[in-house]
Amino acid sequence: MLTVNDHILHIEKALSELEIPRDPVNLYEPLHYMLAMGGKRIRPALTLLACDAMEGDVSIAVHPALCVELFHNFSLVHDDIMDNAPIRRNRPTVHERWNRDIAILTGDVLLVQAYAQLERLPESIFTKIFRIFNTAARQVCEGQQLDMDFQHREKIGMAEYMHMIQLKTAVLLGCALQLGAVCAHASDTDGNTLYETGVAMGLAFQLMDDYLDTFGNHEKFGKKNGGDIVTNKKTFLYVKCLEKASEPDRRELLLLYDDNRLPESVKVKRVTELFTRYSVGNDILAMSQHYTQRAYAMMDALACPTERKKPLKDLADSLLKRNY
Amino acid sequence: MLTVNDHILHIEKALSELEIPRDPVNLYEPLHYMLAMGGKRIRPALTLLACDAMEGDVSIAVHPALCVELFHNFSLVHDDIMDNAPIRRNRPTVHERWNRDIAILTGDVLLVQAYAQLERLPESIFTKIFRIFNTAARQVCEGQQLDMDFQHREKIGMAEYMHMIQLKTAVLLGCALQLGAVCAHASDTDGNTLYETGVAMGLAFQLMDDYLDTFGNHEKFGKKNGGDIVTNKKTFLYVKCLEKASEPDRRELLLLYDDNRLPESVKVKRVTELFTRYSVGNDILAMSQHYTQRAYAMMDALACPTERKKPLKDLADSLLKRNY
Repeated sequence: MLTVNDHILHIEKALSELEIPRDPVNLYEPLHYMLAMGGKRIRPALTLLACDAMEGDVSIAVHPALCVELFHNFSLVHDDIMDNAPIRRNRPTVHERWNRDIAILTGDVLLVQAYAQLERLPESIFTKIFRIFNTAARQVCEGQQLDMDFQHREKIGMAEYMHMIQLKTAVLLGCALQLGAVCAHASDTDGNTLYETGVAMGLAFQLMDDYLDTFGNHEKFGKKNGGDIVTNKKTFLYVKCLEKASEPDRRELLLLYDDNRLPESVKVKRVTELFTRYSVGNDILAMSQHYTQRAYAMMDALACPTERKKPLKDLADSLLKRNY
Repeated sequence: MLTVNDHILHIEKALSELEIPRDPVNLYEPLHYMLAMGGKRIRPALTLLACDAMEGDVSIAVHPALCVELFHNFSLVHDDIMDNAPIRRNRPTVHERWNRDIAILTGDVLLVQAYAQLERLPESIFTKIFRIFNTAARQVCEGQQLDMDFQHREKIGMAEYMHMIQLKTAVLLGCALQLGAVCAHASDTDGNTLYETGVAMGLAFQLMDDYLDTFGNHEKFGKKNGGDIVTNKKTFLYVKCLEKASEPDRRELLLLYDDNRLPESVKVKRVTELFTRYSVGNDILAMSQHYTQRAYAMMDALACPTERKKPLKDLADSLLKRNY
């Protein structure tokens, strides 16, 4: 059985060997640039880990794994345009380094290349893989749209918020795991359990990320605190705080989020004070913890020997037990 | 055997019955808006026509037909963003009616929905269909990138230009016909012949379109003459004229295309004069004619009874024998 690291090396090798054209240069150079940026390769690793846990052949699972990774990169390129993000992984984003139109097309061709990875799958599992992936792909687009919608809405319910991050972030992790299970010809029950594991991991991870953005130890976390606050991002903390706050504090939070003339540090400080006053940091940690436990419970429920689950649990540990 | 019109009605019905979600509204309303805009449905009709000509079951071919139509709509939505086009089919484009970010995502989800149409294909033909479609999808992106590249380049060879329109426009028609052939379990030879038919039709059609944009009877054509000239579009006419013109005329054409302060009517008049001086209108008509003949020659070569080809030829007639 292979370790998380073995799987990640496998992915990196497969990515470097991808048969992707070079011409037109303005289409494929940004694509190679994006893939060479790195990233943690968590999603494709999940596919291989699930397949390996269920005693499948990872040389087959590598195709959907690459599909998921290319899809993830497609969504990053397009999301960065929509978010006007100048930087990703310490390098200029595609639309910043080239331009918006090139970034749109680079994303498009990444999506097509994602699908093309499925060409090599055995027919016996193709249809299942294809359907699972199509559904997740559609849901990720829906999640991104909801996220954009939220930026222009004042009132967002907590259930709506959780639904959005489930679609935007969590389902792709669920999909990644489920695809690995299908490659290993696991039962539908195990496939679904792995899907639920991934969704729970995705939710727990995203919530922890929201927490750390405001409350993390910024030296360990590697980002300045309050990035989400500066960009008026409506996270769990914001939604929960509006839910809990007194009317004057609610109004203050709404005003602060509308105010782009305030010096960044003042804005971050005052919003963080409100978040602290209503201890929404604890709420988000509790919620993240809830989904973390759910992810582990799901892994426990998988019908395979405990020792085979270890690498998958190792990855979950590294994702979910961050301590900044 | 069915007529072109029967097939188009079949497509319209299938489009109206597509199972596409309604929520999030800002994602799916633009998608439905785009599909309801109409269009000639040539590409999906080609798939059904090819399948029917080769005595296949059009109720199977309707899935790849819808796939091709949704893909075409995806590419229109994204191309319109890149071209800053305000109007399509007399209605505001998606990015104009909503906004750019919504148009990006609408295109993305159209592409995913295009793929999802293939879910219902029998396994026996799925792999073949999937590969053919993936290749065409990639090539259309490449063609769009080349088209954008050309807008920033002075010197474009005729071979490069033809390659660009082949990728951007023609291969999808080839793909549409070939998919129909695969659905009918036609031989690879017939599949390839149909592919070549579609490519030739696409080239002939695009060249005729370029011709009509400048030289067409604008009342019949439904557009003001010179739209391509006003937007500095580097068409066959422009490329050919630069190839044939004397050095002073070459310089004049280059200057005219660079000049966006000139009144539109003056610009159109002077560029058209240059095109006329070097009779590039005749060159493009000859080239369009060449590909038209090739398309008919390919249809003649198809291994099926002549009467079965009639509806396909009818569509080709209506596409290629426009007389404005």
